[in-house]
Parts: sequence; structure tokens; C-alpha cells
Amino acid sequence: MYIAALDIGGTKTIAALVSWDGQVIDRETWPTCLRDSYENLDLCVAALKRLMEKHGVTQESLAGIGVTLPGIVDRQSGTLLYAPFSRWENVAAAEYLRRETGVQRVECENDVNACAVGELTYGLGKTYSDFVWMTVSTGVGGAVVADGRLLRGADGFAGELGHLKVEYDHPALCPCGQWGCLEAHGSGTALNRLTKERQESDGDFAAALAAIGAEKPDGKACAMLAAQGNVAAKEIFETVGMYLGRGIAYCVNILNPQAIVIGGGVSASLDYLMPGIEKAVEAGAFKKMERPRIVATPLGYEAALIGAAALIRQEQE
Amino acid sequence: MYIAALDIGGTKTIAALVSWDGQVIDRETWPTCLRDSYENLDLCVAALKRLMEKHGVTQESLAGIGVTLPGIVDRQSGTLLYAPFSRWENVAAAEYLRRETGVQRVECENDVNACAVGELTYGLGKTYSDFVWMTVSTGVGGAVVADGRLLRGADGFAGELGHLKVEYDHPALCPCGQWGCLEAHGSGTALNRLTKERQESDGDFAAALAAIGAEKPDGKACAMLAAQGNVAAKEIFETVGMYLGRGIAYCVNILNPQAIVIGGGVSASLDYLMPGIEKAVEAGAFKKMERPRIVATPLGYEAALIGAAALIRQEQE
Repeated sequence: MYIAALDIGGTKTIAALVSWDGQVIDRETWPTCLRDSYENLDLCVAALKRLMEKHGVTQESLAGIGVTLPGIVDRQSGTLLYAPFSRWENVAAAEYLRRETGVQRVECENDVNACAVGELTYGLGKTYSDFVWMTVSTGVGGAVVADGRLLRGADGFAGELGHLKVEYDHPALCPCGQWGCLEAHGSGTALNRLTKERQESDGDFAAALAAIGAEKPDGKACAMLAAQGNVAAKEIFETVGMYLGRGIAYCVNILNPQAIVIGGGVSASLDYLMPGIEKAVEAGAFKKMERPRIVATPLGYEAALIGAAALIRQEQE
Repeated sequence: MYIAALDIGGTKTIAALVSWDGQVIDRETWPTCLRDSYENLDLCVAALKRLMEKHGVTQESLAGIGVTLPGIVDRQSGTLLYAPFSRWENVAAAEYLRRETGVQRVECENDVNACAVGELTYGLGKTYSDFVWMTVSTGVGGAVVADGRLLRGADGFAGELGHLKVEYDHPALCPCGQWGCLEAHGSGTALNRLTKERQESDGDFAAALAAIGAEKPDGKACAMLAAQGNVAAKEIFETVGMYLGRGIAYCVNILNPQAIVIGGGVSASLDYLMPGIEKAVEAGAFKKMERPRIVATPLGYEAALIGAAALIRQEQE
């Protein structure tokens, strides 16, 4: 059996054919058509048809279509209720895809939850039944797996790690309107802000940024300097890591997980974040508890796409 | 069917006969024999025998013995691994009770988890499938129920709410050796400390304490003053409530529970704590999430005893 996977993100959309054991056989990628969500779904349908034809996959050998959507999703009906970046509202994705493809089995989920289901099915879920997934990129998202099951909570909001408060005395304003959120202190946004602030206040650091030809004083440039051993750059990562560690420590005390699995763009810099993370977890997690393993996802950049496929496989098993 | 329930606490032990639907039929209470844990178990066995004889309950009509123990418990073997207050270690409670009573079905659990199981079986679990139990007394303990199941985590430590960090800039030292724990800022201990500090720094407050004939400047005296509308006393409760609210907000963001159920001695003062709790939850919990109901347990002071009975009923169903 094959699985069709759609990862519809705020920037790009990926359509793929995935094998039952989670290998991506082939994919098409394009910039998400933000103007019209249904036009973007039409592009998905066309891409899937091309991929199936190319690889001789018939509808009978397709177990279903798994879809990750970038916002608040009603899983039951497969509807994207609201996507913050695009203002898409009430997109009946599952219904539309069923009608246009004739495939009856369509499962939708928000991207972060799908990553956790992907990890559970095809990644570290083979080793861990209790783990926390964290997406660290521009913002911070999360999902909780306990006893081998994705935890949803009362209204499907469980795992809102990005809005854990990690700074009370000098809190930064979060796009959500609250102060001191992990998303404002332990994210790509925070890395960019701290890099820019340091550039403005520290001539040596500004010179180091200029020396590597950094276009912008952002997290990417800071990572390049950290890789060269620049002390200021390493301090910035340590600060951001410290806030991530505070959030992780809350998860440890409440959930006692075996592992924290980190995905998202910033996870590529996990090595630089780790000193700060480890210090904060050491100070924050209850002394008698085992420290969880803190690792980057083995699913890499396509975690959400593989997660989309996992939605179909999980329901089937 | 009847259930035998033993609530073995750091101060007192209760043995009781409980009906299948959670009504305490009769009980005996005595100061826990701290010197020797097995001697205390002998007292339990004798009390249960008396209670059964008195009410004409035969061994055949006894579903089992549920036991709450005040420390770290290995449920599988029914052993109390370690009790901090008494230094009891490796007490094979289930094995000993099986041998001495002839009852084969003996289930042991730590007191806070048992409270949550009691709530699930006989209390608000009829209304809520996702809730957090908090014991607020000298210290702070917790347990998490998600999807109608007690969450245990990797090593059985899930729900260590007392060691969530809620103060980073002026943290108090917690008995656990770490700084800024909820147990040090949002507990009976914190109420006592703040009341004493205020007495020393505020002559009017000291006079008010003296006027009510308070023996000690503690949380109990502070609650009496708060009941009279004393502003300083209400401020103390608001501060302690604020820290509790920070811890609750972490739980809300990670778990999205329907309710926070509060037990323990300090829960009697929940009305005075609520203004602080509500402000902190409002500022701390993700804006788009429903606020959970925050309520005192309907099981009252015998929550752990009823929880002990629930251990037997839950396993049976």
C-alpha cells in the first residue's frame, strides 16, 4: 500500500507519495498559493495525480491521503478553521479532496500534531512511548505523546508550548499579545532580536558579523559565528537555549517524558543551544526525576510530510 | 461488594470500610506509628478486622484492600520505596497485607495519585475526563488525568507540580534543594513565611494578628484575618495565589485540561487565593484556550482515603 501525503505550509506546499513504512518515494513542491486555499488544493490534486501516474500507483493501492494544515484544524470534519499567517478560514479540505480525487480516506491534522504522530509512527516512537515534540522555528509549537498516544486535551489545544511563560521580570511581547512567552524568548525570532541588539551594542560583534559578510544580523548569521567559536554568538544561543530549557523543565515536571524531540529550522543549531538548555533543565526539573534525552528529530525537514502519511497509517492500525 | 481502604499518612493513618459507590461506612483513625512501618501495618490489619466484624462483612464480600502510601511507591510490587518524612524504606506493604489478612487483591499507590484516581472514580471524573489534581498543603503535589486515565510518565513521576519553577528573580529555597519551586511560593509553607514576614515589617498587621489572639503568625491566622477583610492578609493570599496560578497556567498550556481540582488543607482558603490565581492564569495561559474550571475537590478531607478505595474499583472495571 501507498500513502499520499500533503504538507500544506505557510510558505510552501509538498505533495508526495510515501511507502507504508514511511519512505518518501517522490514529491512535488511549490510556493503555497496563499490567495486562494481551494486553488492550492487543486494544485495538490493535480500533483498527486501526476505522481501516481508516474509511479504506476492505482487508486486501489492508495490507503488514503494524509494532510497537514498550518493552523487550527477540526479533525473530525477535516476542516482548517483558521490559519493565522494567511487568514484562511473554514477550508473544508477533507471534503474537497475526497470529491476531487475520489479517495474516501482523507485525514487532516495541524502540522505540529502531525509531526508528533510521524515521530510516533516512523521515528523515535519505536524507542519512546512518552515524549514531547517541539517545533522551534520562527515561533515555537509543541505536541505531547503520553503512553504512545497523542494527548489532545479538552479542546485539542494540548501542547501549546510556545505560550508557556519563561520570563517574568524582563518579558518580551509575544505576537499573541501576552508577555514572556517561550515563543518570544526561545525561538528563531528571539535569536534574530538578540543578534540585532548585540550588533547595536557590541562593536566587536558587529565587526565579526561584517567579516562573514552577513546580509542581516539574524539567527543564521549568529549560527555561522557560533560555529567559528565567537563568544558573543555562543552567549546568544545560550540565552535562547536557557529559555527553551525553562519550558522543557515545565514539561519534565508535569509529564516525566523519556525524550524531548526537537524539529523546526532552529533545531539545526541544537548543538549551540544545548549548553543553555541543559543548565535550565538541571535547575528547573525536579531533582529526583531522570533527565529526558533531548534530541533533534531523525525525520529532518520533512517531519510534517512524513507526519501526514503517518495520519493514515495510524488510523489503519 | 465492599472495599477496605487504608490511608497511611505522615501524621495519621485511617482504616475504613467503603461501599462500592464510594461511601465511607465506618473508619478508625490513629497517629501513624512512625517508628516501625510494619507495626503500623499490624494496626491496619487489626482495625480492618474489627471494622469487618462490626459490620458483618465477610472476606468473600470484600473486593480488595486499597492503600495510599506517603512517598514513592512501586505499584507493581506494592512497595513503598521511600517516604521522605519518616525515612521508611522498601516497605513491602502489599505482600505483608496479603499475608496477614488473606485478602489477595491489594493495590498500593502514592497519596496524590490516589486522590486523582478517587476524583476520577467517585468525584468530578463523572464530569471531566481531562483534569489536573493539585494537593496544596505544607507542600504541593499533583497528578494528571488525561482522556480519563492517570498519566504516569516514564518513571511514574508525572505531575510533580510542586517543583515547577514559578519565580526566577527572587526565588525562595525549596526543601528539594532547588530555587523558585511552586512548593516554596504557592503552599502552606509560603503562607506561613509571608505572614511571619509581614508581621515583622508591618505594625498594623502585627496588631491585627494580636487582636484575634493568633498563637502563631501562620496561614491559619492569616485566613482568619482575610475573612475579616484585612487588606494585608488578602494581599498575602493574592501573592500565594498568583504563584499557584503561574503553575496552573503551565498545566493549561501543556495539557489543556477541563478543570483544576484542588485538595489539601490550603484548599479550604481557595476563595482568598482565587483573585491571585485568576490573574496569573489570565496572563499565563494561551489566550485562545478556554480557562479550566478551578474548584476545590468535592471529596473533602478524605480524598486520599476514598482514592484508596477507588484503586480497587478502578482495577476491577
